Amino acid sequence: MSVTASASQSGPEAADRRPSFDALRALVADDMAKVNETIIREMHSPVALIPQLAGHIVASGGKRLRPMLTLAAAGLVGYEGSRHIDLAACVEFIHTATLLHDDVVDESNLRRGKDTANAVWGNQASVLVGDFLFSRAFQLMVADGSLKVLKILSDASAVIAEGEVHQLVTTNDIETTEAAYLQVIESKTAVLFAAASQIGAVVAERPESEERALESFGRNLGVAFQLVDDVLDYSAQQEALGKTVGDDFREGKMTLPVILAYAAGDAEERAFWSRVIGDMEQDEGDLAFAQALMAKHGTLAKSLNRARDYAEAAHRDLDLFAPTAHRRAMEEVIDFCVDRAY
Amino acid sequence: MSVTASASQSGPEAADRRPSFDALRALVADDMAKVNETIIREMHSPVALIPQLAGHIVASGGKRLRPMLTLAAAGLVGYEGSRHIDLAACVEFIHTATLLHDDVVDESNLRRGKDTANAVWGNQASVLVGDFLFSRAFQLMVADGSLKVLKILSDASAVIAEGEVHQLVTTNDIETTEAAYLQVIESKTAVLFAAASQIGAVVAERPESEERALESFGRNLGVAFQLVDDVLDYSAQQEALGKTVGDDFREGKMTLPVILAYAAGDAEERAFWSRVIGDMEQDEGDLAFAQALMAKHGTLAKSLNRARDYAEAAHRDLDLFAPTAHRRAMEEVIDFCVDRAY
Repeated sequence: MSVTASASQSGPEAADRRPSFDALRALVADDMAKVNETIIREMHSPVALIPQLAGHIVASGGKRLRPMLTLAAAGLVGYEGSRHIDLAACVEFIHTATLLHDDVVDESNLRRGKDTANAVWGNQASVLVGDFLFSRAFQLMVADGSLKVLKILSDASAVIAEGEVHQLVTTNDIETTEAAYLQVIESKTAVLFAAASQIGAVVAERPESEERALESFGRNLGVAFQLVDDVLDYSAQQEALGKTVGDDFREGKMTLPVILAYAAGDAEERAFWSRVIGDMEQDEGDLAFAQALMAKHGTLAKSLNRARDYAEAAHRDLDLFAPTAHRRAMEEVIDFCVDRAY
Repeated sequence: MSVTASASQSGPEAADRRPSFDALRALVADDMAKVNETIIREMHSPVALIPQLAGHIVASGGKRLRPMLTLAAAGLVGYEGSRHIDLAACVEFIHTATLLHDDVVDESNLRRGKDTANAVWGNQASVLVGDFLFSRAFQLMVADGSLKVLKILSDASAVIAEGEVHQLVTTNDIETTEAAYLQVIESKTAVLFAAASQIGAVVAERPESEERALESFGRNLGVAFQLVDDVLDYSAQQEALGKTVGDDFREGKMTLPVILAYAAGDAEERAFWSRVIGDMEQDEGDLAFAQALMAKHGTLAKSLNRARDYAEAAHRDLDLFAPTAHRRAMEEVIDFCVDRAY
């Protein structure tokens, strides 16, 4: 039941020493303080609403996982300069812009009532401040002056947008395939993890092989991370902990637990999925019934198995690097991303 | 009554030979055909909704004014390469992304019912396809490889977003000053005109003075263009021609005709403006009454005078350049931008 071979002592059964972000957070703490300074400085604008709204989301207690990957990768390859600081802030700005744009409420979809930026300031402000942060990220990259970094992050941004649109068109499409789903999460999530990690090797001017390994590490970690996120959204344990579940269900998103349950279901079950996801006709008790069907077919466990495959691939990607404290901390982050599902 | 000295024969009184885009359009026709090829090629994506939605807005019969400025400026300075083609497409993509994001309907503002992309495909798709086009613009710039161009257009993008947010916070703010309004339109409109024009000199590696002159030309033209746009939105002539007027009024936007009418109004008139713009309590007949107040105080004419000042400054910016066919065509575009108000 251990998550991976290299993390056997920190597997889910070792409840007193579960994998966490703590080691990596400690290793990059000084750098992250500088990243936060850059973030605060660069989200400034004479238009006061911009730092207000951006501050709401930037300061909302996110894990800063993506910029942390840039800092971690730079540390892993022994980078001694300072370019990774501003570029890590770029990565966070792109992520934040994506979050702001993700939370825009559709005209036809005014049901969600979370305390997102758009709920407080409206759709338009969220969109425009997202645009500002996105532009500011490119300004920072231009100031850094590397066309290679600009290529990595503009390519990533285009793929992210493609992935988000792809997700939009698979939403409520009960026939969405597992391949399409994997393509969506690779585009919308994993590509930024990959770019964030790769940049650490780029600023250090490390060999192409290290760049590729870090890019692959980020990509595999990102897919694992998103798979686990999608499982957690149906998790009974999360529910027991008082966390919100069912967001994806209520939005009719086609995530792997649903795709696998639909594929394994009989005619009656498929009719259920078509009604609640395809037609968005959801009644009380439907989420619980969806969870029961997932339990019946073991689709959360199967989805987690898939996540573990990607986590193991991420581990292999790190084999190229010397077994430093940075590498161990990054390995623990891989394990954490999967372990949090238990 | 002529628009500018240098355009006396094409002033509004010469009804048989009014200034138009035609001369410039003809001069850059071959280049523009290539720009359109780039646009079609670069908005492609395996996610079919992206070219569908982007095509809707890209093909919606816009004047392609901004990319035309890049082509015109390149022609003006005698550029003989081909970099201006893709960069003109970048400018159009950034503009299109802005349009898509502009049209996102606010949660609190579901009244507008125009046939915009967001009305057809929803807010989320409009936002995400805008993000895609924006990212694609940066990919094209990276492929071009000029950090200078990247700086010009990332700076412009950040200022545009700032201007859009600034406009948002002045909307319904009846105390908005003329200075704040000019800052908004310079940021949201003129900066992209300026960048588009400047790039023509940058690709041709012309002296700094020509770059600055073209940047200033674009900026002045952009302010004049937006001032006239804002006048047209209250124009009785436009109404007589069957065009929609009152969009800004219905959205509570603080444009110069309103700002000047509020400043010149007595207590009763100010109460009217506070109700219809500040509180957005609009009844039938209010738009007509607003137009009557503008006529009474001559605020459309005053706004047009301001536009003419900027147009004249744009003319002066072109004095630096040899009196070629390109320069004459660009001068006619300046005159057209103001003349269309008559």
